[in-house]
Amino acid sequence: MNAQPALKPYVIGLDLGGTNSVFGIVDTRGEIKATTAIKTQGYENVEAYVDACVDALQVIIDHVGGLDQIKGMGVGAPNGNYYTGTIEFAPNLAWAHNGVIPLAKLFSERLNHLPVGLTNDANAAAVGEMTYGVARGMKNFIMLTLGTGVGSGIVVNGQLVYGHDGFAGELGHIIVHRENGRACGCGRNGCLETYCSATGVARTAREFLEKSEEPSLLRELAPEKITSLEVSLAAAKGDGLAKQVYEFTGHILGEACADFAAFTSPEAFIFFGGLTKAGDLLMDPIKRSYREHALKIFLDKPQFLVSGLDGSTAAVLGASAIAWEL
Amino acid sequence: MNAQPALKPYVIGLDLGGTNSVFGIVDTRGEIKATTAIKTQGYENVEAYVDACVDALQVIIDHVGGLDQIKGMGVGAPNGNYYTGTIEFAPNLAWAHNGVIPLAKLFSERLNHLPVGLTNDANAAAVGEMTYGVARGMKNFIMLTLGTGVGSGIVVNGQLVYGHDGFAGELGHIIVHRENGRACGCGRNGCLETYCSATGVARTAREFLEKSEEPSLLRELAPEKITSLEVSLAAAKGDGLAKQVYEFTGHILGEACADFAAFTSPEAFIFFGGLTKAGDLLMDPIKRSYREHALKIFLDKPQFLVSGLDGSTAAVLGASAIAWEL
Repeated sequence: MNAQPALKPYVIGLDLGGTNSVFGIVDTRGEIKATTAIKTQGYENVEAYVDACVDALQVIIDHVGGLDQIKGMGVGAPNGNYYTGTIEFAPNLAWAHNGVIPLAKLFSERLNHLPVGLTNDANAAAVGEMTYGVARGMKNFIMLTLGTGVGSGIVVNGQLVYGHDGFAGELGHIIVHRENGRACGCGRNGCLETYCSATGVARTAREFLEKSEEPSLLRELAPEKITSLEVSLAAAKGDGLAKQVYEFTGHILGEACADFAAFTSPEAFIFFGGLTKAGDLLMDPIKRSYREHALKIFLDKPQFLVSGLDGSTAAVLGASAIAWEL
Repeated sequence: MNAQPALKPYVIGLDLGGTNSVFGIVDTRGEIKATTAIKTQGYENVEAYVDACVDALQVIIDHVGGLDQIKGMGVGAPNGNYYTGTIEFAPNLAWAHNGVIPLAKLFSERLNHLPVGLTNDANAAAVGEMTYGVARGMKNFIMLTLGTGVGSGIVVNGQLVYGHDGFAGELGHIIVHRENGRACGCGRNGCLETYCSATGVARTAREFLEKSEEPSLLRELAPEKITSLEVSLAAAKGDGLAKQVYEFTGHILGEACADFAAFTSPEAFIFFGGLTKAGDLLMDPIKRSYREHALKIFLDKPQFLVSGLDGSTAAVLGASAIAWEL
């Protein structure tokens, strides 16, 4: 008798951040059944890191009935390469900053050859949105993560775009100002992320405060203490200068989205990350600017949406979603 | 006895241009077995146009052994939509300029329900390159057609990117100059095609001649007579100003490709169309500029290639290649 193997109801997600490594065991509906976390740093090498991960994981795996209940594991990690399952030269990870670390393979070996997939955080967010969030059923969309930097995950024909080498979707490094652009951490000038990340917004606020005499709540802060959160709080209180900062940011994002539409003509642009907490303060100027700049045939087509996933669990959900695709 | 149905060895390609409609019957290796052509214009309506097409086609279909030998038909047409098989509001086609014309369906009905696929010219060129040209075996590449305008076909995971609505891949309308950009036929300013098409090159030459006193062979021509061909001929003779025109053009294309790499990280950029006749005059500055502008991780990855298809037959081959995919 050949019994049909029972469907495995859960996947593991690992959100591998510079500070914390957060694990979740997730069901098909995106409900987190068990969760745990360890520090990411402080290990001599990657083997020691994986050991610590597996120790912590074992507790929550047992909690849901053992490894037999788990279909696979997905990892969202900086500089993660989906094709190879490796982390490559990740500057903020002591055990991975000067080499190519086969993290997916190491986890799989320690977890009884469980299938393990790995990609970067923004790609994981896009797959998460497609699996559990507002992109369910969408075949063509672009996810923009507006955090410390600007990341992106591009979905075409229902598949994530990894490109020839596994590193496609670096829309934070599209050049939006070719002349006198802001210096970017990548060594070039004028990248989208120098304007439209959380740090970009704070930078814009400092520039605006310096260039004008306009009264603003933000003048109560030392310039170096200004963050995108302070700017959005001030804007919510009606502060004119703070509102102009979000106008400026949304304007650039809308222009960029107009170019992105000419590329893959997505059904939706989905925004995720800290900056989206500003809500319509940011989304309204994005939409206005898109309408000013898009090619006629793309004008009224894409939706502009904010992620449907809870910020605190989205990264783990996104990582876990990779495992359903394996 | 169930005889295996014989494989159909041929496909029909139709390159539907503003002036001529060129047909070819093509085998799997990209050899054109028979060809014919009619004028595109001068018909009262699309039905009359299709009638004339089918009359001309019948002769070459008979020549290769009848419709039973044909697997399908592919059409490359302005404003062609792959998803719907329609031509939508094509400004240069009298019988299609103010409506949505179901051209694929009309051909299929007249050809005994032969499968008929349709897309725009640049997408057809990309599929042609993947089927018969230098992109054989590539899963991720970007085709840029540099003709009267700039068109593009984007291939990701081995599939052409049509986007949500069938109109993806309008890279000629990416904005390359946000300030004081040249006016584009699309109603906006600063589009790639205003600089890097054949007409863009002629425009650059006229601007350079006006702005400087530098002697140039191009000064022997009335400004309105200057074409990209004249510029490349002058450059080939060592004309300094003409060379600068190609430097300028290649510089902008290289910058644009650097942004495109951050989008889909292609294995190659493939250039097609009249401008590529300038050869290294154009390709060298493109490569140099790409290296100056690309994000480090994409720096040495993509190849820069010129189409492997013969210019006079490439459009028909490209269109025919659509039919193998049906």
